[in-house]
Amino acid sequence: MKMIEGGICAAKGFSAAGVHCGIRKNKTKRDIALIYSETKAAAACVYTTNLVKGAPLAVTKRHLADGTAQAIICNSGNANTCNTGGEALAEETCELLAAEMGLKASDIVVASTGVIGLPMSIEPFKVGIPLLHQALGDHSAEAAEGIMTTDTRLKEVAVSFEIDGKECRIGGIAKGSGMIHPNMATMLVFITTDCAITPALLQKALSGDIADTFNMVSVDGDTSTNDMVCVLANGMAGNAVIEEENDAFKAFMKALNTVTVYLCRRIAGDGEGATKLLECKVDGAKDLPTARTVAKSVICSSLTKAAMFGADANWGRVLCAIGYSGAAVDVNRIDVSFASRAGQVDVCRNGEGIDFSEEIAKAVLSEDEIEILIHLNDGSACSTAWGCDLTYDYVKINGDYRT
Amino acid sequence: MKMIEGGICAAKGFSAAGVHCGIRKNKTKRDIALIYSETKAAAACVYTTNLVKGAPLAVTKRHLADGTAQAIICNSGNANTCNTGGEALAEETCELLAAEMGLKASDIVVASTGVIGLPMSIEPFKVGIPLLHQALGDHSAEAAEGIMTTDTRLKEVAVSFEIDGKECRIGGIAKGSGMIHPNMATMLVFITTDCAITPALLQKALSGDIADTFNMVSVDGDTSTNDMVCVLANGMAGNAVIEEENDAFKAFMKALNTVTVYLCRRIAGDGEGATKLLECKVDGAKDLPTARTVAKSVICSSLTKAAMFGADANWGRVLCAIGYSGAAVDVNRIDVSFASRAGQVDVCRNGEGIDFSEEIAKAVLSEDEIEILIHLNDGSACSTAWGCDLTYDYVKINGDYRT
Repeated sequence: MKMIEGGICAAKGFSAAGVHCGIRKNKTKRDIALIYSETKAAAACVYTTNLVKGAPLAVTKRHLADGTAQAIICNSGNANTCNTGGEALAEETCELLAAEMGLKASDIVVASTGVIGLPMSIEPFKVGIPLLHQALGDHSAEAAEGIMTTDTRLKEVAVSFEIDGKECRIGGIAKGSGMIHPNMATMLVFITTDCAITPALLQKALSGDIADTFNMVSVDGDTSTNDMVCVLANGMAGNAVIEEENDAFKAFMKALNTVTVYLCRRIAGDGEGATKLLECKVDGAKDLPTARTVAKSVICSSLTKAAMFGADANWGRVLCAIGYSGAAVDVNRIDVSFASRAGQVDVCRNGEGIDFSEEIAKAVLSEDEIEILIHLNDGSACSTAWGCDLTYDYVKINGDYRT
Repeated sequence: MKMIEGGICAAKGFSAAGVHCGIRKNKTKRDIALIYSETKAAAACVYTTNLVKGAPLAVTKRHLADGTAQAIICNSGNANTCNTGGEALAEETCELLAAEMGLKASDIVVASTGVIGLPMSIEPFKVGIPLLHQALGDHSAEAAEGIMTTDTRLKEVAVSFEIDGKECRIGGIAKGSGMIHPNMATMLVFITTDCAITPALLQKALSGDIADTFNMVSVDGDTSTNDMVCVLANGMAGNAVIEEENDAFKAFMKALNTVTVYLCRRIAGDGEGATKLLECKVDGAKDLPTARTVAKSVICSSLTKAAMFGADANWGRVLCAIGYSGAAVDVNRIDVSFASRAGQVDVCRNGEGIDFSEEIAKAVLSEDEIEILIHLNDGSACSTAWGCDLTYDYVKINGDYRT
């Protein structure tokens, strides 16, 4: 497996575009994106568990009932959520795109991200859809920009891998910066692959993957109303269709996981206001749920996040977050270390503080990618969660998001 | 019932002191407090549910096994948690105080608050305990100051009420500013009363009260390792001892609730970095757990907290927090309003946005006490949660707490 260029256009038969259509006032910001497959693709999707759901999710769920799709359209600037007529508007968007591209509306995935509760007009879509059609090409980055909200960095990735001697490719784009605390589903992530795989196995791969990837990311503890991860697999790589959990399925899962972990790290590191990516790695847990619960609790702790912003090795806050996580752990066996490119510093052994150099700790924590290493010494299960520090800019961005 | 002066010294037979003993470097900051009852008192206590627990909690639990106590000693500046020999030190503290005051060590409640994981020395206690004894008097405010950490305001209250024609008094002090997200127990709160009541009924009153008071407060979602609420009732008011859940018990519960709600509001409004007290009032819930879950979820939402800091009527974040709360609510029935001294503005009806004046909303949200009013239109249960806005200063305080 190797990293390649091309993002969501890396896999055979996929093209994309991102343009400005007027949903946002700022004309220099692309606000709508299209991803298109030359042939109908197997499609799998996971959605937010928030009871308040964006209108596009209901439409997408209906369209994916048959496990296939050929295009994804997504706008930023307005979440099309908690407003009047949002579902009809999402349907109309698909119909407009279907007419423009000669597709069936039911083969289109629709998604939105932005402010909740605003009325939404179909007019910008009437402008944008022909523009998207015209611009369609090898434009993964433009599509990635089209779905960004408070994101400051593009999030795209692609890898190539082999199945039965056939080169397969899988790539993805993501948006996600605030309101990030996925639960069973996640922020907006679109993934394309030319690997041949049945819709059922594709869904199985995706649902299995997210438990240890997107569901282990938290920026601010707020689960969005519009989260969605969608994978299209058009089979153009020419491998034998994956129909069971064989070695080819394992190879596909591994490639998928490479893409999703990359995007998780990008999303967490670009959390609203973030200056640091935090990775909490828990090892020695008695079982996987314990490892996940502990990792997620630490990555969500506002106090730990603020300490990391200040490069302060205040490990007591890590212990505190483990203690209230709800996981049954033996506090007196916990070891904690901080690590980064600058080195590693052990700060707690068997639940008690140990002497360490504040100078070295400061150097370790002043890097922009920090590992919080926790060993529970109670088994062999492990888990990683991704998050970011809590900064002045998070408050600034969210104290006045709408204006 | 009426509000009176005197805090924890308001009730007959109680005195208090707060002095500097050297746990903190800053000599102008009192860092140890003593609360003393002339006679042995019924004692009830609730503790943090964090698995990581401060050493003093274990000692206090043992000392309160018989349901009685006569004094409370509490230091700030060091949590005496996750260090070596913490429990022995807490025991020695009680023994020193017992010797100084002619008490039994097992009649003393001991508590600590401050940084987790620091070694702690007995030396400052040897200095402080005689000073506390000497200073003992009508000094509720000094004791309240002695237990403060990042608190910016004293938190004390007292009320008088009648049982069987006898005047009873109940008063309390509290500390709590960060690491505030109580779960079954809470931050440090000490309450004294001269009401005569059995230890069993006192515990019942306290345990019943906190579910709707301290457990409904959140500053930052972090449940402390050292939370404790302790009530001493010395019976000096002369009322017939409350031994069952009669009218006298109800009168006591009501007075206790007045004290605890007051302290909840003070703690939330003085949350680390806070500029505003937030009260989330949920009505029309189908049952009490639903009302509590919704209120707590909204008050904990970082995005809602940041919007309130910016006086931004971004009600979509309130809907979002209701949606991911885990409570089974009908999203299409939810009404949301914001209110304050400046008026009320309705922003959402039946789960959809309604037109409102941004100007009026700004005025309402620019006050320092904001009500977030949620009606679920699904029953008659209600609940209130208290919190505060998320500000630059929260990040500042917690980015560098130890130094």
